[in-house]
Amino acid sequence: MSYIKENFLLKNKTAEKLYFEHASKMPIFDYHCHLPEKQILENKQFNDVFEIWLAGDHYKWRLMRNYGVDEEYITGAKSNKEKFIAYCDTLSTAFGNPLYHWSQVELKEFFNCELEINKENAETIWDWCNDYIALNKITPQSLIEKSNVAILFTTNEIFDDLSTFVEIAKKDYKFKVIPAFRADKIMNCDAKQYKDFILKLEGLTHKIANIEDLEKAIEIRLQEFIKVGTTASDIALEKALPITKKEDANKVFIKAISTGGVSESETEVFKGYLTYFLMKLYAKYDIRTEVHLGAMRNNNAKMLEKLGLDTGFDSISDTNSMSALSRLLDALNNENLLPKTILFNLNPKMNSEMVTLMGCFQDSSCRGKIQYGPAWWFLDNKVGMEKHLRDLTATGHLGAFVGMLTDSRSLLSYPRHHYFRRILCSYLGEMMENGEMTTDIKFVGKVVEDISFNNSINYFNMK
Amino acid sequence: MSYIKENFLLKNKTAEKLYFEHASKMPIFDYHCHLPEKQILENKQFNDVFEIWLAGDHYKWRLMRNYGVDEEYITGAKSNKEKFIAYCDTLSTAFGNPLYHWSQVELKEFFNCELEINKENAETIWDWCNDYIALNKITPQSLIEKSNVAILFTTNEIFDDLSTFVEIAKKDYKFKVIPAFRADKIMNCDAKQYKDFILKLEGLTHKIANIEDLEKAIEIRLQEFIKVGTTASDIALEKALPITKKEDANKVFIKAISTGGVSESETEVFKGYLTYFLMKLYAKYDIRTEVHLGAMRNNNAKMLEKLGLDTGFDSISDTNSMSALSRLLDALNNENLLPKTILFNLNPKMNSEMVTLMGCFQDSSCRGKIQYGPAWWFLDNKVGMEKHLRDLTATGHLGAFVGMLTDSRSLLSYPRHHYFRRILCSYLGEMMENGEMTTDIKFVGKVVEDISFNNSINYFNMK
Amino acid sequence: MSYIKENFLLKNKTAEKLYFEHASKMPIFDYHCHLPEKQILENKQFNDVFEIWLAGDHYKWRLMRNYGVDEEYITGAKSNKEKFIAYCDTLSTAFGNPLYHWSQVELKEFFNCELEINKENAETIWDWCNDYIALNKITPQSLIEKSNVAILFTTNEIFDDLSTFVEIAKKDYKFKVIPAFRADKIMNCDAKQYKDFILKLEGLTHKIANIEDLEKAIEIRLQEFIKVGTTASDIALEKALPITKKEDANKVFIKAISTGGVSESETEVFKGYLTYFLMKLYAKYDIRTEVHLGAMRNNNAKMLEKLGLDTGFDSISDTNSMSALSRLLDALNNENLLPKTILFNLNPKMNSEMVTLMGCFQDSSCRGKIQYGPAWWFLDNKVGMEKHLRDLTATGHLGAFVGMLTDSRSLLSYPRHHYFRRILCSYLGEMMENGEMTTDIKFVGKVVEDISFNNSINYFNMK
Repeated sequence: MSYIKENFLLKNKTAEKLYFEHASKMPIFDYHCHLPEKQILENKQFNDVFEIWLAGDHYKWRLMRNYGVDEEYITGAKSNKEKFIAYCDTLSTAFGNPLYHWSQVELKEFFNCELEINKENAETIWDWCNDYIALNKITPQSLIEKSNVAILFTTNEIFDDLSTFVEIAKKDYKFKVIPAFRADKIMNCDAKQYKDFILKLEGLTHKIANIEDLEKAIEIRLQEFIKVGTTASDIALEKALPITKKEDANKVFIKAISTGGVSESETEVFKGYLTYFLMKLYAKYDIRTEVHLGAMRNNNAKMLEKLGLDTGFDSISDTNSMSALSRLLDALNNENLLPKTILFNLNPKMNSEMVTLMGCFQDSSCRGKIQYGPAWWFLDNKVGMEKHLRDLTATGHLGAFVGMLTDSRSLLSYPRHHYFRRILCSYLGEMMENGEMTTDIKFVGKVVEDISFNNSINYFNMK
Repeated sequence: MSYIKENFLLKNKTAEKLYFEHASKMPIFDYHCHLPEKQILENKQFNDVFEIWLAGDHYKWRLMRNYGVDEEYITGAKSNKEKFIAYCDTLSTAFGNPLYHWSQVELKEFFNCELEINKENAETIWDWCNDYIALNKITPQSLIEKSNVAILFTTNEIFDDLSTFVEIAKKDYKFKVIPAFRADKIMNCDAKQYKDFILKLEGLTHKIANIEDLEKAIEIRLQEFIKVGTTASDIALEKALPITKKEDANKVFIKAISTGGVSESETEVFKGYLTYFLMKLYAKYDIRTEVHLGAMRNNNAKMLEKLGLDTGFDSISDTNSMSALSRLLDALNNENLLPKTILFNLNPKMNSEMVTLMGCFQDSSCRGKIQYGPAWWFLDNKVGMEKHLRDLTATGHLGAFVGMLTDSRSLLSYPRHHYFRRILCSYLGEMMENGEMTTDIKFVGKVVEDISFNNSINYFNMK
Repeated sequence: MSYIKENFLLKNKTAEKLYFEHASKMPIFDYHCHLPEKQILENKQFNDVFEIWLAGDHYKWRLMRNYGVDEEYITGAKSNKEKFIAYCDTLSTAFGNPLYHWSQVELKEFFNCELEINKENAETIWDWCNDYIALNKITPQSLIEKSNVAILFTTNEIFDDLSTFVEIAKKDYKFKVIPAFRADKIMNCDAKQYKDFILKLEGLTHKIANIEDLEKAIEIRLQEFIKVGTTASDIALEKALPITKKEDANKVFIKAISTGGVSESETEVFKGYLTYFLMKLYAKYDIRTEVHLGAMRNNNAKMLEKLGLDTGFDSISDTNSMSALSRLLDALNNENLLPKTILFNLNPKMNSEMVTLMGCFQDSSCRGKIQYGPAWWFLDNKVGMEKHLRDLTATGHLGAFVGMLTDSRSLLSYPRHHYFRRILCSYLGEMMENGEMTTDIKFVGKVVEDISFNNSINYFNMK
């Protein structure tokens, strides 16, 4: 029997009440994830637990590499079973790592298996899960339904085909699937495939010869996204950039689509302008903007060459962003074009900077117009979440918080919402029992329900 | 009845003993605040609880904005009562925020009201407090006396009229009111009103045509401050600046008082020199220097235009300061003109940098000559104070610490000293019961008394 | 009787079991310290407790300065006894500082004295310890043996005489003494004595007229170190530097050994190249590289002049390093010349950046090829160690960790290994009793043993 008990992470009786009578009953609105919508529509039954668990999950790959596992057992030629066993072995001593918890919870939730994950049990678990998949005909939709997901936002590039969303909307699924709008591939003008991306966008809109054309094309695509229900967008940046002039950005853009080979500083000129443009556009259409700051990507050139993007070779940036971010938000605010914005940040040392800056740009257009996004990616763990809650509440307002998301490529990742909710309930339960806040449990329970679900529903204008 | 009990924040019996038998008995020396001395002298009875609680308190305003409250209910045209109710509503779910605690404590301490602050109780509390004010004739002096304040240092600009302090000194108040010297308005040479400020200073001294004249004028004013008892001064900077040459600073100064319109980098040249000059001057007169680093001010230009400075639109800077700060302290030290200095810092990530740098410039001229100032402004909360204590003790010396201040514009803010003292006693009480330090409670109690009051009295050479 | 009990720092029964049945039984491998090998070989009996405790220990000196002790009692003319008493007095109220614990533990472990260290007991302790030293003939070797040290790595400069290690290897000591290779004095080309250092190196190798000659000389010396058992090397940098061209570094080097007076930026050019060269060299010979980042050294020029290097006037740097560090590791990796590397970092705010970057450069050449080094120097305390463990486990792999070292000049510092082990056992014991990890205590006990000793033995290829 595994170490995970019913009261997992719930530090006292009040925390338990808050969780079981309030948090756990709420459905999930996953307002930022990376699930492929086609996989959901196609709904193919899985062949084995590796396919669900390890294929494509670079969080798990990193952990294996940190343990010294050979790449052959991670992304290489070894069999699914050998890889699965290597992962279980890796997990045995990864105490304190979120995967140590998540994997154990997922095993219980989705496969009804309570064996402790370690080298010794690995083969038994492999067999158990595969039998379970076959017997219960586990598919993407069954996993989403089991997780009580009401709505999920996938993240789609500007030129993605939206027909799958139209198809899904016609079905009577118990959950909605809606794309968030992302223009990152149009933003990163130093990418090798940049011209191809612009060609793709041209194919869906019109000839794009300069930044003026680009802006119009972006707006057209955003309108298409809005037709399938989009109320959210997404921008990823290593750091906030100064706003630049349109004419300077135009020069870089023309270079990028003609000769190519724009430099790092030219790219920053282009991105500085385009971020500003995009946020104004999002404000115009009342599209919430999720800004993801702080990833230093593709540190390992050899592995980038071998495995491509998003394979576990990113890290946390230390670059200062506050001055540029302040000026960006201020400029938008001055033009009355500051969209509802969620600031995500990957460096825990920057929490307090972010929360206090956020507090300078609120208004009454909605509760918590500027949000400090939940602990994300490398921070999506007990340490990161607890710090996020402490830092958010110390200078911000907890009751206005829109809560958790998965940011995941994995269909098994929904228990992370419960992980967050347990930590939230423990945080509050401790303060209640320590005499640091009201003991009116119904009232606090309602706040827990709001942070778990209702606040994000209102914020993204769903239902 | 509110959730605040007698043992609020005191985690065990030892903490309770330390607090009730030692900390709570000590008077308050508030060595840095922003109370207006005239208000104290005039001593007018308040009309309603809004006037005491919400008027001018940008901490509370920010919290309301973070909750999505309309500006009309914050600084706008709504009635005092409507604003008060909106604040109570905001507070209902602001769990973990220091205002959630402070407001509840202030209600009990100053109005003898134990109702929990929330939307439901708001009107009752409004009536209760207003009746209480009328019945008990609540005035500024009555609040200060009730708080057992022995001495308070206001913060005054170099050109402020000091006659109020002379008046107050003649009275037989139970507390002293003394100004700390501040030259920030003379330092910030890019301000619109800079020429007016220099004119004001000229009016009190002599014609100021260059930096030489300015330096003499500053020294004259400092001497005036010293005549009314000043032993402290104050410098606020977003970041530590490199020391610059007097001739370069002179050029910027002449531009600032003639054509105006000095650039950001010119301003830094001027401030870099003037900080160095001021600290040497403070050393000459043995004036303690409080350096406040790390505020990024006036992020929201629209609201600055509308409401002015210090209205809740500042945030925490992320700018690196260590190299410049080290060189500044070293240069002063080399000239034997390093004053007793308290380093305040607004970014919690920088605690350890600051404490270890402080340790490089101590000498035996007093206990803890260079101090790491208490958790301040955005850090003036449970999370910030606990981190401050942990980080200070890990590489510094707790026994030498001068303790808490309010930095507040509010006459109700004195319970923050008790808030700090409770956290200090809990910190020590836990270590004592956990076997991590001596259990000699009398001895530790004496240290608590010193940090609460005696150390700062000695440090600032009071009585 | 002192406050230190048998279960010091062990929060629950599980922690106690882990510590007493596993951690405490393991010998010590101190893979990075600064003990003088000659002192060990000579093995002279100490004259008094000052000689063992306070002479040369700049950690203690800093604490005394922070308390306002006059330099005469620290490094000045006062007697050993007077200095000892001043230290005891300083310690009385240094609650939370690691020296408060370490000193008390050392008193018990090495002098069998359980008196609480404070002003009152100072003289008694002085006499007790001195009697104990005389009676028990305390020498360097007796202290090392009592600490159950199996192996210790001293840190030696490239031009150090290695004959002492040959001598020691011939003896039948119960412990091994092996030098780690360090070229810092060759790296810091702006030092006054740089030419002398190069002359010393020439004396051991050949004429050094340019960087080519220098590289060959370094390699020759490394081979000599390897002959006496070296498997580790060490590089200290304030921050990671960009890789520069060999020809540019050569120009700086030639200037440094001819006219001298290289600038700060020239020095960075040289160090940027040499770091890159050294790490490639270390990879070639499979020498582990310990990179120590983040010390801002010699802040106080006056005291540097008076007392020299390493006397307590260093602090924590805030300089960003991630981008340069990523590019350095990537360049080495691209050439298949990335050595096994331990990244030490002195700024706790950078933990997560470091751990996630480390995760980008692992491979299966060993378990945890790139390590995030333990909490070190200013972080070598309860707060720092607990944060290190939390941050390491959150995004790294605890089971792969090589554990603790002393980095100390003091023969009494070995209890710091136990200090770390107690904190490690408490960290795990709490998670076990809280239902956050397996309760299989034998299995966890084995992991504790590995982190305490076996992992580092394997990592450094000892035995």
